[in-house]
Amino acid sequence: MSMNSFGHLFRVTTWGESHGPALGATVDGCPPNVPLDPAILQHWLDRRRPGQNKHTTQRNEPDAVKILSGVFEGKSTGTPIQLMIENTDQRSKDYGDIAQTFRPGHADITYFQKYGNRDYRGGGRSSARETAARVAAGGVARAAIQALVPGMQITGYMTQMGEMEIDRTRFDWDAIGQNDFWIPDAAAVQDWENYLLGLRKAHDSVGAVVEVVARGVPAGIGAPVYSKLDTDLAAAMMSINAVKAVEIGEGMNAARLKGSQNADEIFMGNDGQPVYSSNHAGGILGGISTGQDVVVRFAVKPTSSILTPRQSIRKDGSAAEVITKGRHDPCVGIRAVPVAEAMMACVILDHLLLHRGQIGTNQGTIGA
Amino acid sequence: MSMNSFGHLFRVTTWGESHGPALGATVDGCPPNVPLDPAILQHWLDRRRPGQNKHTTQRNEPDAVKILSGVFEGKSTGTPIQLMIENTDQRSKDYGDIAQTFRPGHADITYFQKYGNRDYRGGGRSSARETAARVAAGGVARAAIQALVPGMQITGYMTQMGEMEIDRTRFDWDAIGQNDFWIPDAAAVQDWENYLLGLRKAHDSVGAVVEVVARGVPAGIGAPVYSKLDTDLAAAMMSINAVKAVEIGEGMNAARLKGSQNADEIFMGNDGQPVYSSNHAGGILGGISTGQDVVVRFAVKPTSSILTPRQSIRKDGSAAEVITKGRHDPCVGIRAVPVAEAMMACVILDHLLLHRGQIGTNQGTIGA
Amino acid sequence: MSMNSFGHLFRVTTWGESHGPALGATVDGCPPNVPLDPAILQHWLDRRRPGQNKHTTQRNEPDAVKILSGVFEGKSTGTPIQLMIENTDQRSKDYGDIAQTFRPGHADITYFQKYGNRDYRGGGRSSARETAARVAAGGVARAAIQALVPGMQITGYMTQMGEMEIDRTRFDWDAIGQNDFWIPDAAAVQDWENYLLGLRKAHDSVGAVVEVVARGVPAGIGAPVYSKLDTDLAAAMMSINAVKAVEIGEGMNAARLKGSQNADEIFMGNDGQPVYSSNHAGGILGGISTGQDVVVRFAVKPTSSILTPRQSIRKDGSAAEVITKGRHDPCVGIRAVPVAEAMMACVILDHLLLHRGQIGTNQGTIGA
Amino acid sequence: MSMNSFGHLFRVTTWGESHGPALGATVDGCPPNVPLDPAILQHWLDRRRPGQNKHTTQRNEPDAVKILSGVFEGKSTGTPIQLMIENTDQRSKDYGDIAQTFRPGHADITYFQKYGNRDYRGGGRSSARETAARVAAGGVARAAIQALVPGMQITGYMTQMGEMEIDRTRFDWDAIGQNDFWIPDAAAVQDWENYLLGLRKAHDSVGAVVEVVARGVPAGIGAPVYSKLDTDLAAAMMSINAVKAVEIGEGMNAARLKGSQNADEIFMGNDGQPVYSSNHAGGILGGISTGQDVVVRFAVKPTSSILTPRQSIRKDGSAAEVITKGRHDPCVGIRAVPVAEAMMACVILDHLLLHRGQIGTNQGTIGA
Repeated sequence: MSMNSFGHLFRVTTWGESHGPALGATVDGCPPNVPLDPAILQHWLDRRRPGQNKHTTQRNEPDAVKILSGVFEGKSTGTPIQLMIENTDQRSKDYGDIAQTFRPGHADITYFQKYGNRDYRGGGRSSARETAARVAAGGVARAAIQALVPGMQITGYMTQMGEMEIDRTRFDWDAIGQNDFWIPDAAAVQDWENYLLGLRKAHDSVGAVVEVVARGVPAGIGAPVYSKLDTDLAAAMMSINAVKAVEIGEGMNAARLKGSQNADEIFMGNDGQPVYSSNHAGGILGGISTGQDVVVRFAVKPTSSILTPRQSIRKDGSAAEVITKGRHDPCVGIRAVPVAEAMMACVILDHLLLHRGQIGTNQGTIGA
Repeated sequence: MSMNSFGHLFRVTTWGESHGPALGATVDGCPPNVPLDPAILQHWLDRRRPGQNKHTTQRNEPDAVKILSGVFEGKSTGTPIQLMIENTDQRSKDYGDIAQTFRPGHADITYFQKYGNRDYRGGGRSSARETAARVAAGGVARAAIQALVPGMQITGYMTQMGEMEIDRTRFDWDAIGQNDFWIPDAAAVQDWENYLLGLRKAHDSVGAVVEVVARGVPAGIGAPVYSKLDTDLAAAMMSINAVKAVEIGEGMNAARLKGSQNADEIFMGNDGQPVYSSNHAGGILGGISTGQDVVVRFAVKPTSSILTPRQSIRKDGSAAEVITKGRHDPCVGIRAVPVAEAMMACVILDHLLLHRGQIGTNQGTIGA
Repeated sequence: MSMNSFGHLFRVTTWGESHGPALGATVDGCPPNVPLDPAILQHWLDRRRPGQNKHTTQRNEPDAVKILSGVFEGKSTGTPIQLMIENTDQRSKDYGDIAQTFRPGHADITYFQKYGNRDYRGGGRSSARETAARVAAGGVARAAIQALVPGMQITGYMTQMGEMEIDRTRFDWDAIGQNDFWIPDAAAVQDWENYLLGLRKAHDSVGAVVEVVARGVPAGIGAPVYSKLDTDLAAAMMSINAVKAVEIGEGMNAARLKGSQNADEIFMGNDGQPVYSSNHAGGILGGISTGQDVVVRFAVKPTSSILTPRQSIRKDGSAAEVITKGRHDPCVGIRAVPVAEAMMACVILDHLLLHRGQIGTNQGTIGA
Repeated sequence: MSMNSFGHLFRVTTWGESHGPALGATVDGCPPNVPLDPAILQHWLDRRRPGQNKHTTQRNEPDAVKILSGVFEGKSTGTPIQLMIENTDQRSKDYGDIAQTFRPGHADITYFQKYGNRDYRGGGRSSARETAARVAAGGVARAAIQALVPGMQITGYMTQMGEMEIDRTRFDWDAIGQNDFWIPDAAAVQDWENYLLGLRKAHDSVGAVVEVVARGVPAGIGAPVYSKLDTDLAAAMMSINAVKAVEIGEGMNAARLKGSQNADEIFMGNDGQPVYSSNHAGGILGGISTGQDVVVRFAVKPTSSILTPRQSIRKDGSAAEVITKGRHDPCVGIRAVPVAEAMMACVILDHLLLHRGQIGTNQGTIGA
């Protein structure tokens, strides 16, 4: 019932603040004997790391992950895996008025109203820096998935940034890793760059849409009522900082569709597995995977930390004008891509284990 | 870790199938001494009940809820409240080909692929009938909220049905209970009726958007990382049948906004409480309530059960054409309104109790 | 986090009061396709039922269990199984002073101090009648175990009742079901009867020790730190009404032993499985099963409801002398036997599923 | 549902192995604004530390605890507190045959049978070294309790070691901290020392009984069915390495008592609170605290690591004779005292928070 955990059998608890000595993830329930090399986890962390990308903040930290427990002779033991990332960039500075002022659009005010205290150094626990721990935990999940369902692939990308949208007719999986926006549309990259530079010059920021797809998920994981696969995915994505909406398959657009348009028709494939005429469902029917691509999409709001002055108040109730200087991404959607992939990996692994626990290999087979 | 439960301290487990002897909810963690009259719970159930509304299915069941435990001398005792609704309309009939055929857009196929069995009578556990139990549990939550935060109001309404949208300039809280669509726009009712009748005649169905607002939620409930208020609301709504997307505040639209547009500015109100210039955040910052209206919105897909023939397969893998006869709502969004209110009530009560458990009355006060 | 649930993957929530309309168990996480006939559950309930045995109370209720959900065509579906037992013996009577008085040794006073209310009818939620729901749930667990590990046997028996103890040199598994005390020592039955009749005539009651053994538990279930098999068994037994101590293997006697006496030596058996020279460990090492018999033992206190007058107070603080008339077992240990078997079955099934979830078939094999 | 966590609202997850880089506890749910100085946690750890006491092992490690998160400006923030203890005594050595051999009475064999791997360095995750993390977490719990219920005191002591038992007529709270055995009986210390030295010379070890008492626990915490205060205490104590039995109040002795002897009579005290004629119940009735001392007792088995040779097998199934050299306590009961106090503190804090969450201040008052 920990407020800082997610997952059922594969359970991740993150801890740590933006400017404390360290942060990390306590990962419990990983299957044993999964090969876990720190370099693999570091690979995923490096994708998220600030300073890697000219459009993300310049906080220059190595984000080096240490495995403190749960791995012996290069393999998971089945006991808790403690992943620690030290904060090396804890600049001692004068926080001055920031410590007393609530930044609009941030958790500063609600955090104080809840707990009666606030770690004002970089947002404390509310900082997006917490997501580094998720990416590390997601690396563990990916390794375990690799052992259980070798072909599965989990890939995230941006589909929209403010007014810019990708052209899906040009969708190219290979393009995603080749540009700073993780977009599957190479032809759009230059326009996106210009757009974002314009926003930065205007001391502004912008929101985005990120899509994550899991290919190769076996049919049958999930559950029909509360621990649906889509329920857990929605929770996982909504728990990421700045996310304001989560969609599965057609998402909000489903409201516009007619039944005759929306239901994916089913046929028997040549390999004895069902195939579908379309994937409006986003790979999930009644909370359970269909075997099609699992498609999740979410919107992040624009960064609230901008150089444009905003009205706010201080802890004592007095009025304050806030300009947020310092290292801030003009579009946090970029950084959200590897985080979303990590969350998807954790949720899918959890459901693979839950399914195996309750059902074993006693599944239904069509045409048997 | 039950797959059929939600909530942390206020914990609801639903059980039962569409055509079994009964269904219900086991509600644990309700505060003691809350007045609980079966008539109050029945009031909420009657709003959801099929046959009450000419646009919902004609299944004519009283949906009478019985309180089997946890209430003594008209008040909650603090122990589990068992709410049972008997299925009186269990028509014995010949399911024929339905028992062997997977209906497109339904959980039939995934349920079978997971469990190796399927209760084909009306969808079994996957039926939207399960939501009656949620409404009953939500009635308990509302009564407990009433005792803890007397002024709080939780209201749901439709904002879109296919091509029809409400005009927010005509928004009228009082109109909501006055029409069959739960819309806050009396002037639109006739058009919506015509539209839906047209769809029905065309043997088709349509999706919808439902919005739920909680007014009077105190600032400070929720948590900053995984058990965020918005995370738990997203999970609660996504767990409702047919829901494909959930939004908080600006929702998907946040992706289009700039930081200078989105962050709600903060001022000190005359009553010593902070006030905000706007509510893009939907009443939640960093997972914790601001004291503004909590605004959640979600899309439901069009009913998959339509009279238009669709291609599918049978359990043995053979091809089948499916026409779904029988009692089906052309727009399940109508019925989702009271369900969504119930889920909102359960989540908010849960967070009120969690907050009290961890923090007590030791909250932060601005201007103190 | 429900206060009325136990188990991780196989999760049981009981509900109901002694004198309400019904009580029962919501059982979630049962594997699908387990044959579940109400008659099988009834068989286990009949063993616990009051009035079956001349040494247990004369409350003459059929304790008929109804399966309201989760079973279709004679098999579990994998969704929640609702088990309901209606209270048919709800005699309307004048509770008089009982409603205001706290019976010594009962939960009356603490229940009131906690919740600010009390269902005084037969102890309400604190009644041992709640254990009927456990026995029903245990019947489900036994059926699922039968499908997973066909040879496993779970057997409980009394080893002590006040001054009477069994003679372990006469231990006879077959005797257990042949006498009213569930003792494995036929020669002792007459003495135990005389002893208990003497206590009853003296308006007194007595405590007991119950032992439960699971034979055929595979090696490797459990976990090394908090969700140890012994931890979960200790919690399961301590949660039964009137239990004041739980022992595994040597139990309290381990405090007297030397290391050279206590550690069970290990040899390789002819079938390629390890064998042990003894079973001081009670079948559990480091929280994980060894493959030997799992042996749990617990003490129940004497029934507090006796005809001998005891001093107490009323809700208003005034002094009261309490004599508890009515239907009360002179030794609740007798009734605890089937309850303890049920709890053992639930815990073992839960750990079988947890093990399968995390590990699958990827276990270690000695001598491989 | 983590296998390495305990607690409901105050939730502790421990991680780490005996000979890895570090071990620790992730503590979630601590109330905010609790003063937390690392020196306070260190104080409790020093009591448990090896090498502090001539009867515990000579592993000479500082066991210095670092607070990595959740504390800001000397107070808890309400978010996860990460407590890390680095293993400074990781001697690189040749484990030789130990790596292949299962030590009798240890988790070596079951751990391997479960996970298919084994960290043979000092027992890995199964090492009693894990209890250092519990003591650190218990220090947090004590600090939070101090803020909530200032007068409460939690004290553990040994009552038996092999054949030696304390004389309760000489019980002296002040003596407990004055001797190496934590016994409340100063006159017995010399005999206990001689006895233990004799065992050590004989290359043997011995079991023990530890008792923990919480004084000043308010009436009303706990719950009547599964999350009883005694259930959670039994689980907490049974989860400590080497524990084979847990008793509440009269414990196993309750089996010998008559109802007329056992039920504690109730009177009204001069301060308007109920008083009891005795405390057979150990401060808990029906799972809920009475306001009397909460009394828990448990037995630990003798250390299995002894210099006397024992028969066992290797991973390949071959026979082996095991003599366990190295640093081992002849009686682990000594070290169990501070661990048991820590577990008691965690359980009681958890129930104080749960009670506040569900009930608030809406309790029952006798004589009101």
